[in-house]
Amino acid sequence: MSGPQTPEHVLDAQGDSSSCRKDEDAREGTQSSHRMLGFSDALLSIIATVMILPVTHTEISPEQQFDKSVQRLLATRIAVYLMTFLIVTVAWAAHTRLFQVVGKIDDTLALLNLACMMTITLLPYTFSLMVTFPDVPLGIFVFCVCVIAIGVVQGLVPEAHPSPRPPWPRAVLPCGHLLPLLLPCGHRDPPAPSAEVFSFDLHEPLSKERVEAFSDGVYAIVATLLILDICEDNVPDPKDVKEQFRGSLVAALGAYGPHFLAYFGSFATVGLLWFAHHSLFLHVRKATQAMGLLNTLSLAFVGGLPLAYQQTAAFARQPQDELERVRLSCAIVFFASIFQFAIWTAALLRQAETLQPAVRFGGQEHAFMFAKLALYPCASLLAFAATCLLSRFSTAIFHVMQIAVPFAFLLLRLLVRLVLATLRALRSLRPPQPLPSRAPEEAQSRLLPSSC
Amino acid sequence: MSGPQTPEHVLDAQGDSSSCRKDEDAREGTQSSHRMLGFSDALLSIIATVMILPVTHTEISPEQQFDKSVQRLLATRIAVYLMTFLIVTVAWAAHTRLFQVVGKIDDTLALLNLACMMTITLLPYTFSLMVTFPDVPLGIFVFCVCVIAIGVVQGLVPEAHPSPRPPWPRAVLPCGHLLPLLLPCGHRDPPAPSAEVFSFDLHEPLSKERVEAFSDGVYAIVATLLILDICEDNVPDPKDVKEQFRGSLVAALGAYGPHFLAYFGSFATVGLLWFAHHSLFLHVRKATQAMGLLNTLSLAFVGGLPLAYQQTAAFARQPQDELERVRLSCAIVFFASIFQFAIWTAALLRQAETLQPAVRFGGQEHAFMFAKLALYPCASLLAFAATCLLSRFSTAIFHVMQIAVPFAFLLLRLLVRLVLATLRALRSLRPPQPLPSRAPEEAQSRLLPSSC
Repeated sequence: MSGPQTPEHVLDAQGDSSSCRKDEDAREGTQSSHRMLGFSDALLSIIATVMILPVTHTEISPEQQFDKSVQRLLATRIAVYLMTFLIVTVAWAAHTRLFQVVGKIDDTLALLNLACMMTITLLPYTFSLMVTFPDVPLGIFVFCVCVIAIGVVQGLVPEAHPSPRPPWPRAVLPCGHLLPLLLPCGHRDPPAPSAEVFSFDLHEPLSKERVEAFSDGVYAIVATLLILDICEDNVPDPKDVKEQFRGSLVAALGAYGPHFLAYFGSFATVGLLWFAHHSLFLHVRKATQAMGLLNTLSLAFVGGLPLAYQQTAAFARQPQDELERVRLSCAIVFFASIFQFAIWTAALLRQAETLQPAVRFGGQEHAFMFAKLALYPCASLLAFAATCLLSRFSTAIFHVMQIAVPFAFLLLRLLVRLVLATLRALRSLRPPQPLPSRAPEEAQSRLLPSSC
Repeated sequence: MSGPQTPEHVLDAQGDSSSCRKDEDAREGTQSSHRMLGFSDALLSIIATVMILPVTHTEISPEQQFDKSVQRLLATRIAVYLMTFLIVTVAWAAHTRLFQVVGKIDDTLALLNLACMMTITLLPYTFSLMVTFPDVPLGIFVFCVCVIAIGVVQGLVPEAHPSPRPPWPRAVLPCGHLLPLLLPCGHRDPPAPSAEVFSFDLHEPLSKERVEAFSDGVYAIVATLLILDICEDNVPDPKDVKEQFRGSLVAALGAYGPHFLAYFGSFATVGLLWFAHHSLFLHVRKATQAMGLLNTLSLAFVGGLPLAYQQTAAFARQPQDELERVRLSCAIVFFASIFQFAIWTAALLRQAETLQPAVRFGGQEHAFMFAKLALYPCASLLAFAATCLLSRFSTAIFHVMQIAVPFAFLLLRLLVRLVLATLRALRSLRPPQPLPSRAPEEAQSRLLPSSC
């Protein structure tokens, strides 16, 4: 993907050198693990977000009040979703750490990995069982069996894998692989790098590529969750169109208008949050543990977005409920985006280690990044405040926010360019100074929160 | 991801050089397009497979015969699924070709790409409208509007993008970008590489990375489609458990047994087909147009797998239907795997261009690859033939196939290793010859079909 004008002979040379390396691998029976990891990331991100579906599909009839039993049902399902999300993220982190140790794979390892994935897909179901039948220990039992099975399979991985690089120590302690899944953060062994025993270094930064791949998977499945419903449920019945709408398909589709609006709103918000995440991680070199945790929290709220948007559109019949739901949506958007902002803050705190030089505190891209990440928290806070003052127009306010923010993202670029051009023009008017990057630094430090 | 023993200073040097490059990019406002393309691939693969959901959710009550009206409904939905899959794949191929020309992206381009994705997600819905209301032209109209919108957005891409590399010609013909979407294969302009006009070279091989990413997305979403249903629908109701099963949760779960079996069967088959695909593309250097087309056909059948497995399990109540459904499943597995085999054959036909040297005709890995790809077509054909002879035990035969094939994959490795070891032992007994790789070549040529 290095552009179309790369000369043929360069491509051929690249192809030949990489094919030589691959030939060696083929003789050893090992392969690069890149694609298997990408596939695992895709599977895990789908499994992490799957339990939002029972929440979004909670049926509340228009007559029914938003009463205690419905609230309890919703709260239970949201709890199951959050538990699933967190446990799958922990399993993903363990998987990432394991494959930071295992550099190359063979066929047995690829098959073992598939078995591991299949076991992980059962975890969400065990949570549902646990919550629906709190008195029956079967759910917990199945959960424990699954976790042990995953641990055993992950424990088999370094045993099965042929270790093509002699300098790197092979595993002899299966417990060492079980532990990171069960105790993802608390495992603090004193470092004992003997030749025969290894333990995962849990303070080593997670691979940035895999954090990105997992996040991409979550964003992609969340963005399309509502289209899955729309394609299946929202095609009008020909009979209904004849009887209720006198044969007018446009009128029949109009009845589904709120669903489409919810879809566009949800897709646009998820898409733009992905865009902010993408911009953020372009400037990140390494993801620390704190950043990984904040990223997980942000993603968990992103997973809640379809719920929020569907609720604003589909059940907006009683004015009281409407207000509550718009506020819930604003809150979810706020938390999803503020945790992204927190990733940025956490990266700034250890900027020498985590960031590209161009965006470090006072760098040229800093102000722009800051503005990008602050856009959604500010917009959602504003919308929330507006609904408090003008509770009558809460839906209108929410829709205005939905439409305004994408344009704000587009204009942001122009605005920041304008500001930079003005600063440059101002600087060129002054006599040359020994510190030429002084002016933008001052401008940016005024923008920054006091915590950085 | 180059292993844990890479020394610190090497990592630092790599980080510094890559950060220098990224600093330059940041100053120009451009970014590498890698992650955006991955995200687009994930979105497009989910959209391509979304219309299998209405097919899998076609409710057939046990009393109802598998009569003409149900058959017509199913046939319609399958047609919509296939149309969606093909048109989204065409859109994906156009997207791939476009970004083989565009090397770097900026923020505007990333936002335009999101808008393009949002429009593409509407395509499946327009097909549903077209099929449900064949007399109303609204569906076709919305479809055309979507395609034109996608074309316009894709046409804007090279205009908006700042063209960081002067040698490569900028676009001035928006029609040039519309065409590949509408006419993906038939567009054969005489090459006219003037400085101001470019056209897509539609005979250039597709980027292997993107073919892999798109395929991974399809495999991942198809593998998890059934778990989406299971997590939502198959948690027993506490009331039913008390009344119907006398409070026994295990008995209540037993009633859902066929669903779980269908899930495991579907996941294992999709996972193993992914594994075969993964092994195949490890040995591929470039994907030609024919291979891309065969890959699309294979993926379209893979998308039908959850349907097949769900049907075998859920509706297996009348013996006549059971037989039909087992055969349908065998046929889908057969076509999904035979098209993978066809990719391999197509690659062999132009092996100097497409394959790594190690697997070219007669290479050491050749026989193993051949055995891997032939496993599923043979197993499904055998199972199909067995149901014709022993129609009474069709379900049992199908389940045996489900269980046996994963073990066959594991044993395959051992078996091929044994054969190779035997050959090596035989060779070491003989006096040394001028052509030492003669024996395995002969063994493999006997295995090969005459078409290669």
